[in-house]
Order: sequence, then C-alpha cells, then structure tokens
Amino acid sequence: MEANTIINPLVRKFRDIRKRSENICQPLEIEDYVVQPIVDVSPPKWHLGHTTWFFETFILIPNFPSYEVFDDQYNFVFNSYYETIGARVIRTDRGNLSRPSVSDIYRYRAYVDEKMTEFLNSHHMNDSILPLLELGLNHEQQHQELLITDIKYILGHNPLFPIYKKEIKNTHKTTVEKRMLRFSEGIYEIGFEGLGFCFDNELNRHKVYLHDFGISNRLVTNREYLEFMESGGYSDFRYWHSDGWNWVKENKVKSPLYWHKIDGKWMCYTLGGLEEIDPDGELCHVNFYEASAYASWKGMRLPTEQEWEVASPHFEWGKRWEWTNSAYLPYPGFKKEAGAVGEYNGKFMVNQMVLRGASVATPPGHSRDTYRNFFQPDLKWQFTGIRLAK
Amino acid sequence: MEANTIINPLVRKFRDIRKRSENICQPLEIEDYVVQPIVDVSPPKWHLGHTTWFFETFILIPNFPSYEVFDDQYNFVFNSYYETIGARVIRTDRGNLSRPSVSDIYRYRAYVDEKMTEFLNSHHMNDSILPLLELGLNHEQQHQELLITDIKYILGHNPLFPIYKKEIKNTHKTTVEKRMLRFSEGIYEIGFEGLGFCFDNELNRHKVYLHDFGISNRLVTNREYLEFMESGGYSDFRYWHSDGWNWVKENKVKSPLYWHKIDGKWMCYTLGGLEEIDPDGELCHVNFYEASAYASWKGMRLPTEQEWEVASPHFEWGKRWEWTNSAYLPYPGFKKEAGAVGEYNGKFMVNQMVLRGASVATPPGHSRDTYRNFFQPDLKWQFTGIRLAK
Amino acid sequence: MEANTIINPLVRKFRDIRKRSENICQPLEIEDYVVQPIVDVSPPKWHLGHTTWFFETFILIPNFPSYEVFDDQYNFVFNSYYETIGARVIRTDRGNLSRPSVSDIYRYRAYVDEKMTEFLNSHHMNDSILPLLELGLNHEQQHQELLITDIKYILGHNPLFPIYKKEIKNTHKTTVEKRMLRFSEGIYEIGFEGLGFCFDNELNRHKVYLHDFGISNRLVTNREYLEFMESGGYSDFRYWHSDGWNWVKENKVKSPLYWHKIDGKWMCYTLGGLEEIDPDGELCHVNFYEASAYASWKGMRLPTEQEWEVASPHFEWGKRWEWTNSAYLPYPGFKKEAGAVGEYNGKFMVNQMVLRGASVATPPGHSRDTYRNFFQPDLKWQFTGIRLAK
Amino acid sequence: MEANTIINPLVRKFRDIRKRSENICQPLEIEDYVVQPIVDVSPPKWHLGHTTWFFETFILIPNFPSYEVFDDQYNFVFNSYYETIGARVIRTDRGNLSRPSVSDIYRYRAYVDEKMTEFLNSHHMNDSILPLLELGLNHEQQHQELLITDIKYILGHNPLFPIYKKEIKNTHKTTVEKRMLRFSEGIYEIGFEGLGFCFDNELNRHKVYLHDFGISNRLVTNREYLEFMESGGYSDFRYWHSDGWNWVKENKVKSPLYWHKIDGKWMCYTLGGLEEIDPDGELCHVNFYEASAYASWKGMRLPTEQEWEVASPHFEWGKRWEWTNSAYLPYPGFKKEAGAVGEYNGKFMVNQMVLRGASVATPPGHSRDTYRNFFQPDLKWQFTGIRLAK
Repeated sequence: MEANTIINPLVRKFRDIRKRSENICQPLEIEDYVVQPIVDVSPPKWHLGHTTWFFETFILIPNFPSYEVFDDQYNFVFNSYYETIGARVIRTDRGNLSRPSVSDIYRYRAYVDEKMTEFLNSHHMNDSILPLLELGLNHEQQHQELLITDIKYILGHNPLFPIYKKEIKNTHKTTVEKRMLRFSEGIYEIGFEGLGFCFDNELNRHKVYLHDFGISNRLVTNREYLEFMESGGYSDFRYWHSDGWNWVKENKVKSPLYWHKIDGKWMCYTLGGLEEIDPDGELCHVNFYEASAYASWKGMRLPTEQEWEVASPHFEWGKRWEWTNSAYLPYPGFKKEAGAVGEYNGKFMVNQMVLRGASVATPPGHSRDTYRNFFQPDLKWQFTGIRLAK
Repeated sequence: MEANTIINPLVRKFRDIRKRSENICQPLEIEDYVVQPIVDVSPPKWHLGHTTWFFETFILIPNFPSYEVFDDQYNFVFNSYYETIGARVIRTDRGNLSRPSVSDIYRYRAYVDEKMTEFLNSHHMNDSILPLLELGLNHEQQHQELLITDIKYILGHNPLFPIYKKEIKNTHKTTVEKRMLRFSEGIYEIGFEGLGFCFDNELNRHKVYLHDFGISNRLVTNREYLEFMESGGYSDFRYWHSDGWNWVKENKVKSPLYWHKIDGKWMCYTLGGLEEIDPDGELCHVNFYEASAYASWKGMRLPTEQEWEVASPHFEWGKRWEWTNSAYLPYPGFKKEAGAVGEYNGKFMVNQMVLRGASVATPPGHSRDTYRNFFQPDLKWQFTGIRLAK
Repeated sequence: MEANTIINPLVRKFRDIRKRSENICQPLEIEDYVVQPIVDVSPPKWHLGHTTWFFETFILIPNFPSYEVFDDQYNFVFNSYYETIGARVIRTDRGNLSRPSVSDIYRYRAYVDEKMTEFLNSHHMNDSILPLLELGLNHEQQHQELLITDIKYILGHNPLFPIYKKEIKNTHKTTVEKRMLRFSEGIYEIGFEGLGFCFDNELNRHKVYLHDFGISNRLVTNREYLEFMESGGYSDFRYWHSDGWNWVKENKVKSPLYWHKIDGKWMCYTLGGLEEIDPDGELCHVNFYEASAYASWKGMRLPTEQEWEVASPHFEWGKRWEWTNSAYLPYPGFKKEAGAVGEYNGKFMVNQMVLRGASVATPPGHSRDTYRNFFQPDLKWQFTGIRLAK
Repeated sequence: MEANTIINPLVRKFRDIRKRSENICQPLEIEDYVVQPIVDVSPPKWHLGHTTWFFETFILIPNFPSYEVFDDQYNFVFNSYYETIGARVIRTDRGNLSRPSVSDIYRYRAYVDEKMTEFLNSHHMNDSILPLLELGLNHEQQHQELLITDIKYILGHNPLFPIYKKEIKNTHKTTVEKRMLRFSEGIYEIGFEGLGFCFDNELNRHKVYLHDFGISNRLVTNREYLEFMESGGYSDFRYWHSDGWNWVKENKVKSPLYWHKIDGKWMCYTLGGLEEIDPDGELCHVNFYEASAYASWKGMRLPTEQEWEVASPHFEWGKRWEWTNSAYLPYPGFKKEAGAVGEYNGKFMVNQMVLRGASVATPPGHSRDTYRNFFQPDLKWQFTGIRLAK
C-alpha cells in the first residue's frame, strides 16, 4: 500500500488536500469545533464531517462494492443541502449537536481516507469517476476557506478574543499606486475554457458586449474606508440601497465586521488577536451593501463580473473576494447536471451577488479568473473587499 | 378657469389621469379603503393620498409661491419611502390608521387638483417642470395598477369573497397557436430612446450581445400549469431554487394565489367573484419561484429581459407581467437623478427580479416594450404570468 | 309589539344595554370601526358583531325554532374563542377584514335585536334561559368597556390624535387625604353570594386567612408617579420583576401609555384629545410590571385580591382597575359550566393577574366588589391604576 | 492543610458539594459541555463556571483581602442574572462561547476551591458569612439538578441518542395502591421554621385557611397518562387552558418530552439510552399545561401548594417535581434581602407556577417539604410529574 500511494499521484493529491483541512483545525481547542454562533457559520467539526460524507456518499457507496458505511446515522448529520440524498439536520441546529464527537469525526475521516486510498488504487477506479473526484476535492477546498472564516467568526465573537495563531500575517498591505485602467466598448469573451477543473457555473465561455469602463488597479484601503465612515457614510441614506439602509438601521451598523473602537482607537480582531487598524491595509469584511454605498459615496460604482473578468489580467487580485454589481445568474446555455451534484450551484441562482477573485483564505491552487463566488448581499464574514469601477 | 382647462391639454391630461384613480375606487365600501392585510398591500386610501402628496411635495410646494399646504401632518402619513423628505409612517403601520378619513382624502385630492390646475395655467408653470409633472402622472398610473392589485387582495382574502364589479372580464384567453420564435446570436440594442416619457431605469439605449435563443409566442395557460401541479410540481425539490423550495415548504404552497379547491374543483377569486378556472385562460398570480420551477419542469427556462425586449415585437404581450430570469440591475451608464426623485428607482436595484410587458391592470398608455417592472421573487399578488424560453 | 316591549322589563333591559354599545360608537367615522393596531385591540365593528353573534348562537339558534340565521358565514367571522362552536378568524386577522361592512353589522344587530324581542315575548322564553340571557348582557357590557379602551387606542395611536368627544371629562381627580387603612390578622370571607348575577369565577364565597395588612384609602396620582419617573424608576432594575425589566428594556418604556413629552411638558392623549397631565389626577394606563415597580420603589407592595375585597367597603373605588398581586386562579371548589359557556373564564386561569374594582369605562351597573377582572402583566391599554398596600 | 480539612467540617461540606458537580459531568465528552440547544438549557461548562463565580464574587472578593481574581473577564461570562454585578452574556449566547475551555473552567474551579479552603480556615471567616456560604452551597446544588436535566436535554436531542451512563435506573416505579387522602377545612400552617437553611421564598411560616380537599397518595403513572393520550387528550381543547391549547397546536405536541413512537411502540430517551415505556413507571417530563389538562380529563384538579405542603407528610414524594395550581407569589410578609442576593428569588414572582417535592435529580440533602420550585407553565425538561387533587 505504502508503495502504491507513492506512485499514485491521485492518491497523493487526495491525501494532501484532505490533510490540509485537518491542519487548519490543528490550533483549535475541542470546544471550538462545536459552536455555531450564527446560522451561516458552521461548527468546524461539521465541515470536517460533511466533506468526508461527500466522498463516502458520492464516490465510495456507488462505486466501491466492498465499502461498508462508517455509521448509518451520519448521512442525517452531515448532509448539507442535497435533497436528493434524504433527510438532514436543519442548518440552524448544527451547533446543538455535541455528538458525533471530534475524535469520532477524525476516525470517520481516517476510515474514509483509507477506503478512498484503497479505492483509488483499485480496479474500480476509472476515468469516468475523475470528474466527481475533482468535484469532491474542490468541494473540500471550498470548505477549507469556510473553515477559516468560520473559525475567525467563532473566536472573534468570543468576549475573550482568543488567538488562533500568533504568527499569522493579518493584514495585506497594498503598495501599488492607484490608477484607473480603461477598457473600450466592444465584444469580449468570458467563462471557462480549457482542460482543468471548473464548476458548472463557469460554463460556457461566451461573448459579451461591454461598454467603455474604467476599473481600479487596486483595492480600497482601510484609510479610504475610514474617510467614508468619518464623513458620516453610515448615517446618510443617499448612498445606500433601500434594503441596505434598512440593514444599517436594524443592526445599528457603524463599521466593517470585527472592528471595535477601543479607547478612541479603531482596532480589529484578526486570527492573530486584536490589532490596531493599519490604514494601508486592504479593507476586509464588508458586505455588498457597504461596498455599494462606499462606491456611491465616491461617485463611482462596483464593476460587473464581466468587466472584472475582462480586466483581471491587468491587476493583482487574490487577497479579498471582490463584490461585483452582478447578480448570480446562469450563463447562456447553462445546464444543471443530473442527480445530486446538479444541486451544487444552479439552485442558488437567485438573491445572491457574485464575488470575483479569491482571498487570503482561499487554498493554493483553488483560484481562477473565471471563478464565480456568491453570497447574499448582507453577509460579511468572508474575506471581502472593494474594487471601484466607473 | 373652465375655459382655460378646455384649452390647456396638460390640465386635461392631469385631470383625466387623476380622475381615473378615483374611478377605480368607485365600487368600494369605505371600509375597503382602510385595511392592509399584508405589508406589500397598501390601503386604497393610502394610495389616493400618497399620489396627491407627490404633486403637493414635488411640484406645488417648491414651485407655486401662493400654495398653502393642505395639512402639515400629511407628509408624515403619505410619504412612502423618500428619506430626503423626512419622517414617515413605517410601511407595516399604514393599515392601523383610520384617519385621515376617506372623505378627508378626497377633499385633499380635490384641493390639490384645484391648485395644480391653477398652477398649470399660471406663469409659474414652465418647461423645466414638465419632466416632474410627467413623473408624477406616471407615478399615479403605477399606483392605479397597485390599487387594482391591492383591492383584489383585500377582497380576495376576505372570507365573504366580495365582488368588486360583476361585469369584469376576469380571464384572458389565449387563442394563438403555440410556437417557438427563434433568434440568432449577435449584437442587439435595448433600452429607451425617443421623445416620450420613460423611467430612468430604462436608460440608456445600449448594445447587448445575445446568444441563439427561442421564445414562446404565447403565455403559459392554466391547463398547462395544472399539468405541472398534478404531476407533483409543488412536491419535487428538483424543479425549484433553494430559496423557492424553502418558500414552498414554509408556506405549504399548492397553487397560484387566489386558487381554491372547492368540492374537487379548482376555483379562483377574480374581481368579479369566485369562478371556475378556465383551462384556456392565461395563467396569473405566480411568483418568480413558481415561474422558474414550471420552466424547469418543462426542461426550459425563463427569458432574460434583453431577450424579451428584442423578441417582443414578434408576439402579443400586455395581459400579464412576465417574469424574466434577469435580476433588477442598472443599465450601463445608469445615473440616479439628484434629490428625492433620484430615490425613485436606483435604490431598489438589488434582491428583485425584472418583469416585462404589462397586465390587464396596467393603465392605458402606460406600457412600453422597454418598461422594467420589478418585484421580489416571492411576491405574486400582481397580475403575473409565464413565457418560456430555451 | 310596541305595547309588549313596554310591559316586558326583560326586553327593555335587553334593548337598553344593546343600544348603549351603539351609542358608544356614535362619534366614530366608519374608518375607525375597521382597524386593529395591535392584537389585543379589536376593531369596533368586530365588537358590535361579536356580541350580536353571542345572542344568535347561544340563545336564538338553540331555543327559537322559527329563527333563521342572518348569514351563515358570520359564525366564522365573529366567534372569538369558543372552540366548541367551530372555526374562527384568528385574532390577529380581525383588522384585515373590510367586510362585513359597518352597515351590514348594524343590520345584523337590528335583525337579531328584533328576533330577540320576539323571542323574549314568546312562549319559548322561560326561566331556564334567564342565566344565559344575563350572561349575554354582561358579556355585552364587558365589550362596552373594551369598545372604549380600543377606540382610545385606535385614535390615540393615530399621528393626527383625533378627538373622540370634546366634552369628555378625562381625568379623575382625587381629593381624599391619603391614609393607610389597617386590618388585623384573621379569617375573612370573600366571593359572591346573593341573588344577582355574577361570573362563575367569583364563586363560591369562602373563608380566607389574612395577615395584618394596611391598604391605602386612595389611588396613586400622576404627581406621585412622576416622582418615580423623575427619580429614575424606569432605569433602575432593582424595582422590577425580571420579566418586567426585560419588557422595559425591549420596549424602551419611559412612561405610562398615552404620555408624550412635548416641548418639555408631559402631555397625554385622552378621549377629548391631547391634554397636559394633571398632577392631582389618578394615574392611569400602567401595567402590572409598572404598578409593582412603583410599589417596590415606595417600599410597599400591591394588595392581594383577598385583601382588596375585604378592605373595599372602606375606600372609594371604581375609576381605575386596580392591579393586585394575585394571579388569576380558581377559587376553592370552582367548577366550569358544561358546553361553550364553560369556556368563558376557566381556561384563562394561568399567566394573568387579577385587577379589582372598575373604571371610568365600566358600564353603570356592571361593577361589584367581588368582580375579578384579569389581564396579562404587560398590558396597559385598560384604565388601570395603582393602590398601595403594606 | 490536609489536617485542617479533616477537622474543619465546613471545608469538608464545601468540598463534597463542589466535587459532586464535577462527578455529574464525569461521563461527558468535552463537546457535551459546550452546546445550548434551547435557551433554557445552559451548557454544562457554564454551570461549572457560574457556580464557581458565585463563591468568587459573593464570598472571596468582598471578604478575603489576599484574594486575586482568577480572570477579570469571567464576571462577564459567568454572571447569570445579577444586574447588580454588571454586564453579562445574554442567556441565548451561552452556547456560542467555545472559550473559556472546559479545562480552563476546571482550573478556575480548582483555584477557587483552593482559595475557599484557605479562606474557610482563616480568621477572615466568621459567623456572619455563614448564611452566604449556605446560599452558595444550595445554589451549587440547584445547578447540580440543572446539570442533570440539561445534560439529558443535550444528549436526548442528539440524533444519535448517546448514553450518559449505562447503569442508571431510569424509571421510578410506583407500587403503592392508589388512594385519596382526605383533609378537612380549617386553619393550617405552612412555610419554613427552624434552624437549618431555607430560601427566602419559604418564609415566613404562616397560617392559611384551607377547604375540604382530597389528594392522591401517589403520582400519575405512564399507563394512566397513555390512557389520556389514547383517548385523544391532545386533540380536545376542552381539557386545556387557552394558552395551553395554543401551545399544543403551535408545537404539534403529542406526548411528554423524550417520548418517541418507534415501530408502533412508545419509547423514551433516558440517561441510560432509549427504552421502552414502563407502564408502571411514574410519569415524567410534562409541563403545567399537560398536568392541568390531564387533571381536567380525569374530572379532578392539581393541588395548591398549600394543600400539598399540609398533606405531604402522608404520602411519599421526591421522585418527581409536582406541578401545583399555585402561581409563584410572595408569602405574607416576604422581604427581599438587600444587594445582589436579593435578586435570587423575588424578582421571578410573576408568570411562573410552583412545583413542590423534589426529583430523582435533586441532590441528597437538598429537599424540604417547604421547598418552592418554580417554572414557566410551558417548560418540561425538568423531572416533573402529576399528583391529583379534588
């Protein structure tokens, strides 16, 4: 077996990606794995179980005849939203489940990893299964980013502000000089094309007609956003969408997430603990409403996702998910796949806005300029930032 | 004065449109003017007051020096959402206000109409005010459609099912033979251009790149939707968006709005009372989730608003607002106007879907193929229908 | 018939009490009859219909063979909480019903009154029906008080503060000198005994053991309560029950209901319009939490209902319902009656506090020192006041 | 030190009671300490910290000059409801806190226990502190019962139904023959008197006048309650309080808590796992509404707390908290103590019902026939049962 795993690159890739999820959780106390402070933040142990369940349910059970299910009940506990696969714990209840315990879940991971290794080395594995395997690994990587954002939320909303890792570099400074990049009206192409993996929502590559536009070569900084705050941005309805303004008033919002004014100084919680705001750092943890209001205050706007994709080779990206002014909708000719994996993307194509780029929390190798991330416009616990357009 | 109004066509247009709102309310009991059964449905007396307040606030007060405000408090009561103009009754409270009484509001209308006539005949009126006047009249017409849909909701949710008008023709039958109209990939133009009135959200006319598409020459009928219902459409998650499926389950939805199964027969409430469903009638009162689910069940999709506008000269439209798969977003180069009227459209450009066409409740002369109506995806008390695309 | 009604005192009593409900509504606009600003406040037209439905349902239908129901649907609309009698509009929906119209309801009243007169003069009437008739009339009187408190709420929460009746004497001044009445430990008797009408919850008369207590000979005044307010009573948790303190914080309560600080002066809405607070007036519109907190701040307490009843012959009462520190519970030997009227009182004997006395809104002839009124501890739209004990 | 603890009985008592809390938690996984599935159920680690905080805050800080606070932030985390002592985590958020970790809390306990031992052996300890020490120990014992009920809730609502302790005897069988004990009308005395500890709400001992009553010598069994269920008790409004009936309908209640019908058999979750219902076992986990409805169905009633206390020497009690029909109210002459400990009982004397007796989860030595337990009428996660009266 050992010998095999060395020579089978699929197994190595599988094991490396799976291992990374566990590495992310390594600094946690067991208690940190359990809680769900808001509905959007899942307990870390749930992420570890759910990604494992994905491989068990979609690869091992249908394709590996000798496979024995680790625990019958786990489908109920770790199914996230696949209605095809049966009953599931409702999302708000994930934080109420103390069992399976963290060590049970690590045993579950070890068992499934072992069986996956066997499977990948067996004659049951074949090319037709590759796309599902790729999907499972990309799914695991998406949950790695969620693990980091959810851990940050769990620790950052604890009154003791515990440190995740001391040595973490928390802010990303921008040093590029700000400049407006200009693009001319005409036909462009966007969407994925090529040999590697992509999600179904990136297909097909297709022509779009864009109008003259400008887009900034860098992200908005904390200093710039502080100007907006200090000039009364959170108390002037004119900059806000109607829904955004209601959100501000209901939640008495005054700043990005994790910001606290302490003794007259703006501090923010980072994975390394409470820190003073760095004015030159790239702004983080704003939602679509805030991004739009900031742009409006500047007399500018957010780019569309088409503009972003066309312009992206000309600027640096990858530290913050960048809000676009595009709603999450299907590309021309979009087709849902048959079966449960068809539920992966298509059914979310309403009421969400597209984010482009990637973030400091995105796993290496998991970003593309055609990648379409999406969230509801009021959410801001992801590593989200602002790039302006005109 | 009489002589004047005869020769001033602006006055005649103003008075005709204003009168039409009152005609719509003519069959009501006083009690019907008062209630607000759900937050989206405003009391008819509120519509009558609010449209009047619009002329008082945006035309008379700033432009007619001799004008005396009818009642100081009315700004508080009849402001809908213009934050620029000050405090307002929150929307959910409109149905709690028994005063101003209906007769007070009719006196308010008469007073403002009289003063507007004086103003339009005076030297204070000039061309620079025309756009605002047009906006006010189009605003009044939008509320005429809402008056009809809200009256239908108020009476149609009363256990006594009162009749609004006996003689109303309730269903619109389709007789055209169903056909798929085909359009080829390429550059098209959409958006308003010309001399007449349009809303700011229809501007500017601009090029779009469309891909090959087909679009039906007629709307979905009751018979066709009944097939969806009878084949279990409301109980199979696969056809639904995730948010739509949650909506179905939470609200135990089984049919379009106003439909009731009575003694084994599908009946529906119409403004003429309870009637049996006409299978050949054009389906009405479905929301975006239902429209999408139906399309998905048919293996088809909803058109985008761009496709709809390009194809619209080739089919009949105007009986049902047609859900598109386009989110309500700004056109390239969209600019909000300064001041309170800038709040008219732009601030709603998130979380809503575009509807195209017009409906049986749309006032004559108030429809255009560039008109962009918009509502949240769960609402279905407007006269909404489905046109399929592919 | 005329001749008959003159000589039949039951008919006269019936007609007088029924007429009084309509007199109370005489100053209203039709719109005022319709709205339900909070769940506890019913639309006046609902009260008028519901009290009529009571006579139709419990007296005419079972006892008057020739009686024809006025409208089959009205049972659904006007049943308040009698589960025995079938489906009913849920309480929160009453304000959504524009029909039956006010004039329909007055016709319903006239019809049922006519039939009741016929019935009372007929041989179908007999002594066994008297208790139900008495219950129906007392029920009507209870709704007369609710009509007044609900009208006050509807008008008093309208931003125009409409006047109900100019000539109404709004405050009741106390002139008695304050004194503590003392009672000694021992056995006392409370509860109803005698020939007249009482509710089942006042039975049976029974012995109670009381301990030495003092009770004030008069109610707390506005001046006294203002001292509590000005000394920070609403911001010091120590005076409040835990539930009361949560209620204060959630609702940001600062004063009794209907009080508004305008230009530095405390004003209050009365049925005669907005008036300045009269310091010598008896405090009104506080709930149990406020009454308890005030007593606690004074280093005193509220009386129990037993103490109140024993002491009541020694002081004036009848202007304010007086909160006691007694929960609403059955007397020893309490028995619910069979059938729907058994639902009148017993099923409410949990989660409510007893009020004793009567108020300016109580109909003449409808008060007794054994009368047990009851409301949830957070409600304060009744004419409620405070008497201290020690 | 060792020598000291042997000869100081206060220290031994302190250490024994403190140790018992930890023993209760011994079978738990770390994850079980963290979750809060409903607002009424606190995380076990919170109980362990909160009881420790009580000794630190009320005894060590004010009385032991050399004491150094373990962690400044813990007051914020572990204050339950003492407004006097400052800010606190709102109750619903307890389950969102992964830190302090379980091991931190055990260190906190060890530290405070050590310091308390030093203190109790020091000259700073004196008789005036004894009442507070007693209160702290009784407080710890109350939380021991809550630990057991909360652990049961946490494990019993996990889809895996984990076992707490295999060897636990879950049901308590009644073998006494059912009999009605009769008591005659007259003056009785209730309330605490004597030398030992009692809570302030048990004072003072006072005379009450009771009327002839009967009370059952034993609790209602599962078999008896099953008859109620099978005869349609949960679907007949006539047996229920109005609030109780709403609770049944809203929550679709069909059985006591922890009961599950599996393959046609009634099972219930116990601390030893899922078990078949024992018909002869004493009924457990019903709320006040259910207890009242059952009594009403039997044509009987619940006893008052006065009746219960008078009769209690004549029957066995202590396995189930027994719902009474008495609201939780102050005894004649009740006085809140000054300062924070005055918040212990008095401020809860509204909206709750009294339970008498004790349960299988009550610590040894922590029950008295004068003990007044109290809960809201809809709660049923305590070990609650029914005793009938007439």
